[in-house]
Amino acid sequence: MFEPNTGELQEKLEKKRRLIRVAMGQERADLVLKNATYVNVFSNALCHADIAVAEGLIAGMGRYSGTTEVDCSGKIVLPGFLDAHIHLESSLVSPAEFVKAVLPHGTTTVITDPHEIANVMGTEGVDYMLQATEGLPVDVRFMLPSCVPATPLDEAGAELDYRSLERFYAHPRVQGLAEMMNFVGVVNGDAGCLEKILSAQSFHKKIDGHAPDLPINTLNAYMSAGVYSDHECHDLDDAIAKLERGQFIMIRDGTAARNLEALMPLLTTQYADRCMFCTDDKHPSDLLEKGHIDHIVRKAIRLGADPIIAVKAACHTAARYFLLNNRGGVAPGYLADFVIIDNFRDFNIEQVYKEGRLMAENGVMADFPAPEIAPALHRRARETFHLPTLSAADFETSASRSIIGMVDGEITTVDAGRAERADPDSDILKIAVVERHKNTGHIGVGYLRGYGLRSGAVATSVSHDSHNIIVVGASDADCAAAVNRVAELGGGIVVWDGGRSVAEVPLPIAGIMSDAPLATVNETLEAAKAEAHRLGVGRGIDPFMTLSFMALPVIPTLRITTRGVFDVTTQRYT
Amino acid sequence: MFEPNTGELQEKLEKKRRLIRVAMGQERADLVLKNATYVNVFSNALCHADIAVAEGLIAGMGRYSGTTEVDCSGKIVLPGFLDAHIHLESSLVSPAEFVKAVLPHGTTTVITDPHEIANVMGTEGVDYMLQATEGLPVDVRFMLPSCVPATPLDEAGAELDYRSLERFYAHPRVQGLAEMMNFVGVVNGDAGCLEKILSAQSFHKKIDGHAPDLPINTLNAYMSAGVYSDHECHDLDDAIAKLERGQFIMIRDGTAARNLEALMPLLTTQYADRCMFCTDDKHPSDLLEKGHIDHIVRKAIRLGADPIIAVKAACHTAARYFLLNNRGGVAPGYLADFVIIDNFRDFNIEQVYKEGRLMAENGVMADFPAPEIAPALHRRARETFHLPTLSAADFETSASRSIIGMVDGEITTVDAGRAERADPDSDILKIAVVERHKNTGHIGVGYLRGYGLRSGAVATSVSHDSHNIIVVGASDADCAAAVNRVAELGGGIVVWDGGRSVAEVPLPIAGIMSDAPLATVNETLEAAKAEAHRLGVGRGIDPFMTLSFMALPVIPTLRITTRGVFDVTTQRYT
Repeated sequence: MFEPNTGELQEKLEKKRRLIRVAMGQERADLVLKNATYVNVFSNALCHADIAVAEGLIAGMGRYSGTTEVDCSGKIVLPGFLDAHIHLESSLVSPAEFVKAVLPHGTTTVITDPHEIANVMGTEGVDYMLQATEGLPVDVRFMLPSCVPATPLDEAGAELDYRSLERFYAHPRVQGLAEMMNFVGVVNGDAGCLEKILSAQSFHKKIDGHAPDLPINTLNAYMSAGVYSDHECHDLDDAIAKLERGQFIMIRDGTAARNLEALMPLLTTQYADRCMFCTDDKHPSDLLEKGHIDHIVRKAIRLGADPIIAVKAACHTAARYFLLNNRGGVAPGYLADFVIIDNFRDFNIEQVYKEGRLMAENGVMADFPAPEIAPALHRRARETFHLPTLSAADFETSASRSIIGMVDGEITTVDAGRAERADPDSDILKIAVVERHKNTGHIGVGYLRGYGLRSGAVATSVSHDSHNIIVVGASDADCAAAVNRVAELGGGIVVWDGGRSVAEVPLPIAGIMSDAPLATVNETLEAAKAEAHRLGVGRGIDPFMTLSFMALPVIPTLRITTRGVFDVTTQRYT
Repeated sequence: MFEPNTGELQEKLEKKRRLIRVAMGQERADLVLKNATYVNVFSNALCHADIAVAEGLIAGMGRYSGTTEVDCSGKIVLPGFLDAHIHLESSLVSPAEFVKAVLPHGTTTVITDPHEIANVMGTEGVDYMLQATEGLPVDVRFMLPSCVPATPLDEAGAELDYRSLERFYAHPRVQGLAEMMNFVGVVNGDAGCLEKILSAQSFHKKIDGHAPDLPINTLNAYMSAGVYSDHECHDLDDAIAKLERGQFIMIRDGTAARNLEALMPLLTTQYADRCMFCTDDKHPSDLLEKGHIDHIVRKAIRLGADPIIAVKAACHTAARYFLLNNRGGVAPGYLADFVIIDNFRDFNIEQVYKEGRLMAENGVMADFPAPEIAPALHRRARETFHLPTLSAADFETSASRSIIGMVDGEITTVDAGRAERADPDSDILKIAVVERHKNTGHIGVGYLRGYGLRSGAVATSVSHDSHNIIVVGASDADCAAAVNRVAELGGGIVVWDGGRSVAEVPLPIAGIMSDAPLATVNETLEAAKAEAHRLGVGRGIDPFMTLSFMALPVIPTLRITTRGVFDVTTQRYT
C-alpha cells in the first residue's frame, strides 16, 4: 500500500512512464547494448537484439538508440549471476570489500546467511549486516540464521528463537530462513526448530535445508516439515532423491566443499530447472585466484555442460526460487544486471553492469559509496570480546586430558590417547577454546597431535560456529599470550613466538571480519600462514582453517569445546 | 506472525509433528496410495512408490501403511489440475455448482477473475465470490478485476480504481491483478492503469496480461510496465515473442477461444516450463460434454505432446507462477491433491482427491457443505436490477438508426445501413441495451440484421462486460415485455413470444449466475435456445452468446451501447 502524502506513488508512476516511453521508442534509452547476442533463459536459446535500459531496468529488446551505446558485436550478454547460499563473513572482509571482490566476476546478487556474525552478536549481527549491505552494487539478500547456537554444546554470543527472528521478515531484503542444519531436531519434532519453520512459512518465506545423506523416510520427514532446498549434496543419488521430492538443489562449489563434478549430470534438461549454484564459503585466496559464480559456470562448461543450462543455473533458477522475480533473465522490466563475456570457452568477463551502471570492466571496479552503519552498531561490532587477561595458569591441567589426533587432509579427527602436558618434541600440543562472549571464564583444555607446531602458539577468533578463541600452543604461557593478543586486537588470527606476535591478521568486525580490502587481508593471511609453517605446522595443513573447525562439535571424533574435549561419536566429554 | 493466545502456533506445531511422525513411518498415514506410478514434475519422469498422506498433506513417498489404503497398481497418479485463468461466472452457475462440475474432471485449483460480477456489484461482487468459494473442495483463488468498467463507454455497476482493490491483497486467496485488458492505457502511461499495476507490485502480487498481437516495441512497453503472463496468444509467433520476453504463456482452450492446436509447439522441452493451461470462459454444455483442464491435457496428448509435459502444464507451471508453492507436484509437504487416471491414452479420470479426501469417483461427487454468505451480501447479489418498468414507447425511435449487420459464424459485425423501424420480414429487428444498474433510464436503440427472429423478443442480462439488459425483438412491445421479464426474474435469459415468456433461464445471482446445478441450467438453456431457433434465429447462431457480445464496444464494427449504436472503427456514435 502506498503511504499517503509521501509522493511515493507519484514517483514510481513517473519512473514507470519513462520506462514505457523508452520501450515504445518515444524517448532515448539511458543505455543500449547494441547488437547484443544474449542468453535467453526463457526460450533456452541465444537471441540477437539491442537491449535498451532506462531507470536501471530493461525497457526492451529490439532496435533502440540511447544516450550511451555499447557495441556488443562478437560478445555474449548474460544476466547477472546469483550466489544462492554464502556466509559472507567467510571471506574475512566487510560486505563492501566482498562486493568489490565478487562483482568483477559477474555476481550481482548474493543470498547470505549471517550465521557467523549472529553467533557473535545475535540479532544485532543481522542488523549490522543489513546496514553494511544497504545500497551496495551487489544486491545482498538475507536468509535468517536458523541455528544459533549451532548445537546445545556451543557457548555462542546469542541464542535466537523464532520470536527474535520474526521482526526481520518485514525487511525487503530478507528472503527466508537459512539452512536448517539441525535436521535431527526437525525430524524429532523439536519445538524450537519447528517454530522457526512455521514462523517463516507464515510470512511466505523460503526455508533452506542442510542435510546430507538422510535415509528416505527421514528425508521425507525433513522435507514435509517445510524445507525447500539443499546445498549439501556431494553425490548424485542423494541429489536426485532430494530433487525428485521437490527440493531445489544448490550445486555447491566453494572453498571447503566442491560438489560440481559429482553433480554434473544434474546440468541436463531433465533436472537443470531445479538447480542453481552456490559457494557456501569462499576464502580470500580462493576468491582472488579462481573467482566466484563465474568460476563454477566456466568449470561446468569445461566439464561438458550446455552453456545455456550452466548460465541459467547461475542466474535464473536462484532468482525464481528466492522469488526475486525482477532478475535472472533479459526481459522488459527486469533489473539491468548484465555480464558481458568474450565467449563461452574462455568465459572472460569484460564488463559487469548493475542496474544499468557499468560497475566493473576487465576486473577493475568503479567506485561506490560505502553504506552508513549506525554509530552504536559500529561500536557494538568492535567490542565483542569479553574475557579476562589470561595467564599460563589458566591453561594448566591437573590431570591427564584427551589427545585429539589430526588426520592428514581431512577435518575429521581421531582419539589419540591422553596426555598430561604439551610436548612439542613428541608432537603433543596444548589446545584450548576460550569463551570470549560473556566473560564466563570457561576455558576447555586438551591436547592435539599432528599439527606440527614446534614453538609458540597460534590463536584465532574464527572458530566455527561460536567464534570463541581457539588456541594451539607449545606451552601454556604461549597459549595465554596468543589469546590475549587476539582479544587485544578485538579479534583476528595471531601467530605468537619468542614472546611476541610474529604475524597477525586483525579481524576487528565481530572478531571475524577485517575492514581492509580483500587483497590486503589475503597478503597478511598468507604471511601468517608462512610464519605458522616456519614454526613447524605441517605443509599439508591450512594452519587456521583446520583450527577453525576444531571446536565444531558435530564432526567426528574428538572436538575441543569451552568445557573440554568432547567425543562426537559417544556424545560425551572425555 | 502468530497471534498470541490464539493457540494458532501450537495447533500448527501439532499438525506438523504428526505429519513428520507419519513421514518417519512412526505412525500410520491417513491415506496411502499403494504401488503408485506417479508423474514426477521435478525429475520429469514416472516414479513408483507408496504415497503417504496425513493432515491433508503428502507425508512422503516410499513404503508406507495407512488407515485407508488404495491400491493404485496399473493406474497413474497425477497432481491435481489448475485452471490458470477463468471467469467462473461464465459457467452461469454458482461457485459451489461450478466446483461440482469441474472437480470430477481433476481440477483442484482455479484462478478466477470475478470481472463479470464486479461489473455488476463492484467490490461487493468480489466479496461475494470470496465468501461463496470459502472452504470449497476446489481451491478458488482470485485475481482482482483490473478493468471495471471495461471501457469508458460502458455503463457498469461500478468503477474500480487501485484504492478500491487494495484491501483485497491481504486476503489469503488473492494472488494478484487480473488480465490488464486496457493495454492501450498501459502503453500510453494512463495513471489509472499504472496505479493498479504499481499497487499490485507493492504487494508482491502477480499481474496477468491480455494483449494479442502487439508490435514489438509496444509489447516491450506493456511488459516493462509489469505484466507477467498472457492468455490471448492465438498464434505461435505471438506466443514466442511474449515467452522469450519473459511472460508466462497460458495456453487457452475454452468455449469461446481454442488456441491449443496453434500453440502445440510450445509443449516441448524448450518452452514448456513457461506454459500452463487455462479455459478463460467455459459454458455449461461445454463443461458437461468435454470437461475442463483434463480435456486440454487429453487433447494435447492426442495431438502429440509428451504426457509428462502436458501434465506439468496442467498443474506445475501455474502453481509456480501464482506462488502456490504447496501444490502442482507430488512432494512431501504438498497438498494431497491427486487425480488418478487409467492411462495416458484414454485419460479416464477414476478418482480425484482434494487434501487427502476422495471427492469424486468415476464422475460422481462427494457431498460437501455449502459456503455461508453473509445475509446482507446474499440479498445484495439478488437485488441488482434498478430500472423502471418499460413500455413500447421506450424503444421507439423518432429518426433512423444504424443497422448492425451480423456476420455468419463470427462475433464481428458490419455496418448494414440504417432503418426507421423493425421489419422482421426484411430481417430487420430492433436491438437495444437497457441500463439496469443505476436507474439512469439510459436505453440505446438500433437495428440488427442477420439474427433471423420472426416474432417476439430475446433478452438477456448476460451482456459483456457491463451486463446491462440486451434485447432483440420483432416489435417495441415485445422488447419492453422481454426486458421487464428479465428484471422481474432478477436477471436471466428470456425468450418472449405471443405475450408470454416461452422459455427462460433465471440467473438471480447478480443477474449472471443461477443457483441451480449445472445440468439443470444447461437443460433450461438448451430449451430456451430451441425456442429462439423455433422463432427464427438462424441455426448457425448461438442465440444468447452472440447477443452477449453485441454490447462490447471493442469488437468491430458496430456495437449497441446504452447511448446508441457505436462504430468501433471510427470511435463514434452513429
